[in-house]
Amino acid sequence: MNDQSKFSPLKRGATIGILGDGQLGRMLSIAASRLGFKTHIYGPNKNGPAIHVCTKSTTGPYEDLDAIRDFAKDCDVVTYEFENVPEFTAKAAMVSAPLRPGLSALTTAQDRLVEKTFLRDTAKVPVAAFEDITSIFDLTRAVKKLGYPCVLKTRRFGYDGKGQYVIKSEDDVKTAWAAIKEQPAILEGFVDFKREVSIIAARGKNGEMAAYPLIENVHKNHILHTSTAPADGHGGKAQAFARDILKKLDYVGVIGVEFFEMKNGDLVVNEIAPRVHNSGHWTQNAGCIDQFELHIRAITGWPLGQIQLKHGVQMTNLIGADIEALDTFAHEPDTFIHAYGKKEVRKGRKMGHVNRIIYVPRGKLNR
Amino acid sequence: MNDQSKFSPLKRGATIGILGDGQLGRMLSIAASRLGFKTHIYGPNKNGPAIHVCTKSTTGPYEDLDAIRDFAKDCDVVTYEFENVPEFTAKAAMVSAPLRPGLSALTTAQDRLVEKTFLRDTAKVPVAAFEDITSIFDLTRAVKKLGYPCVLKTRRFGYDGKGQYVIKSEDDVKTAWAAIKEQPAILEGFVDFKREVSIIAARGKNGEMAAYPLIENVHKNHILHTSTAPADGHGGKAQAFARDILKKLDYVGVIGVEFFEMKNGDLVVNEIAPRVHNSGHWTQNAGCIDQFELHIRAITGWPLGQIQLKHGVQMTNLIGADIEALDTFAHEPDTFIHAYGKKEVRKGRKMGHVNRIIYVPRGKLNR
Repeated sequence: MNDQSKFSPLKRGATIGILGDGQLGRMLSIAASRLGFKTHIYGPNKNGPAIHVCTKSTTGPYEDLDAIRDFAKDCDVVTYEFENVPEFTAKAAMVSAPLRPGLSALTTAQDRLVEKTFLRDTAKVPVAAFEDITSIFDLTRAVKKLGYPCVLKTRRFGYDGKGQYVIKSEDDVKTAWAAIKEQPAILEGFVDFKREVSIIAARGKNGEMAAYPLIENVHKNHILHTSTAPADGHGGKAQAFARDILKKLDYVGVIGVEFFEMKNGDLVVNEIAPRVHNSGHWTQNAGCIDQFELHIRAITGWPLGQIQLKHGVQMTNLIGADIEALDTFAHEPDTFIHAYGKKEVRKGRKMGHVNRIIYVPRGKLNR
Repeated sequence: MNDQSKFSPLKRGATIGILGDGQLGRMLSIAASRLGFKTHIYGPNKNGPAIHVCTKSTTGPYEDLDAIRDFAKDCDVVTYEFENVPEFTAKAAMVSAPLRPGLSALTTAQDRLVEKTFLRDTAKVPVAAFEDITSIFDLTRAVKKLGYPCVLKTRRFGYDGKGQYVIKSEDDVKTAWAAIKEQPAILEGFVDFKREVSIIAARGKNGEMAAYPLIENVHKNHILHTSTAPADGHGGKAQAFARDILKKLDYVGVIGVEFFEMKNGDLVVNEIAPRVHNSGHWTQNAGCIDQFELHIRAITGWPLGQIQLKHGVQMTNLIGADIEALDTFAHEPDTFIHAYGKKEVRKGRKMGHVNRIIYVPRGKLNR
């Protein structure tokens, strides 16, 4: 559990350690610098996006615990940009610096079974029906219980649609089990959703909380394509669920909570990301404190500050060769470019994003 | 002269060299990263503000021309964050990479006599009457010509009110000459101004130009205290003067032009800064492309893009111990913190700034 009830704000010029050298680390580092903090990035890539805009960096594998300990000794607080930081790495860092969000958030989000069980039984938020799968026998039984279609998901390392298989009939059961390489998994009841929405929220010192308005997300090929905020509809219920999750995790920092919205308007929590989240990148150009600064404020014990959108924003991810069209975006009015400095263009690789200001009536901006 | 009529846009991932490791370099580096560029900082301070957020840095004196040449070889374009880069340093860099803004902008702005002569005779914009002073005899004669009060200013290295002396009567003449250590100087007729205003403008590839609205500046102890934009009144005339200056300097990049506004509304150009400018820091939170990105766009041959303010902003400099109140600012709604990461708090030292959103009727935002 975290120590947010007693921690005092980090001093000016303190060093924030970030595990991970990707674009989230990059944007966290920039936000940290705005508040006068130094950053130290630890990651496996010597040319990772975060390396270009940090005070200091250490290149190494997450398994090198001596290097991790040295890194943490140089930091006043350590955070992470992705939830698959190994537990032993996090623990090695924690010997020398507080880890925020804490270990429980990390281990919960790393394992779909632990995550879903936490959401259902501890946070008590609505989730799809799910079953623990460790064998083909489990799977056969669970499929009968949940009915068709249903979705088989590996417990670990699934993202952007990887490690998932939709089972539509009895014929798919064996194929699905082979497709996910017989790894420990969960089977989820199919959620016939109307749209995907998310909430970016934060919890800080003394349990103070903040949440941005509801976000509508559209995926293409299982990768986030656009996030639009504020989304139509009222975010109150989704924000309340996010707050329940933050509280029960005794969380410090920014969290992303993804929901399915059903035809009747009911919400089902799909997953949580214990970090800044792609669906929150629009906050950089909404005229308010962005999710990166909000996270830095939370983990350093600063006040979260007020979040009041000045206009709506639509974020579009630039995937693979999309990045080649920067010149076109550069001509567009009210369009803001955020490139990640990745050299190699690969299919499906997140290369950057653009935020476009959209018109939203004032009364619908912050609710 | 520059080569902006023929240069093609820098490629993704290109390296921008910045001479100077201060806060302007810091914010230029962040803007460059947003567009996917790498940065290389050259400056004398191994812990300068820009060093915390750059891809690469070289620490050394501006006089080490071998180091400057090596630095420039690593860069696709070189720019500077302050106008007192020695001419020989600029020339050494230019051997290996284009310098933008060009040498003529630099040498013009380094010397008040050259600058005022350029403004009056080449750009043909209004300036205060001035005289070239190289001796006490020049000064005695010029004082008679311009009348009391008048202002003696060193030709070089004057900023934040340093190197200036107001001559109110005959008794002050010798004192003034001694006070500025008998350096080459100019004597300026006193301008009885109503307020100080400025324009931040840019010129890019093919002579494309852009200018933000009029800014009102208030100084305290000769240091900029607040900049408010858009200022009351119409910026058209000031923007037109800025455009004349950009054109006549064959300029590429962002320029700051400071004006005195007389009681009758007439404008007099006080000085130009061939770089991003403290009075343009509010652009970071106005819902448009900020001056730092605008400069990077200009010097890399990108389109300047459209500049449409979404709201007014007041910038307040945090000088010396002002930085200790960050926690107070962090609680304020619609207030954005920009700290420079400077360790030592010194009287008169620029430690950061805050941008506060202010209400401006929509029709008055962009004119």
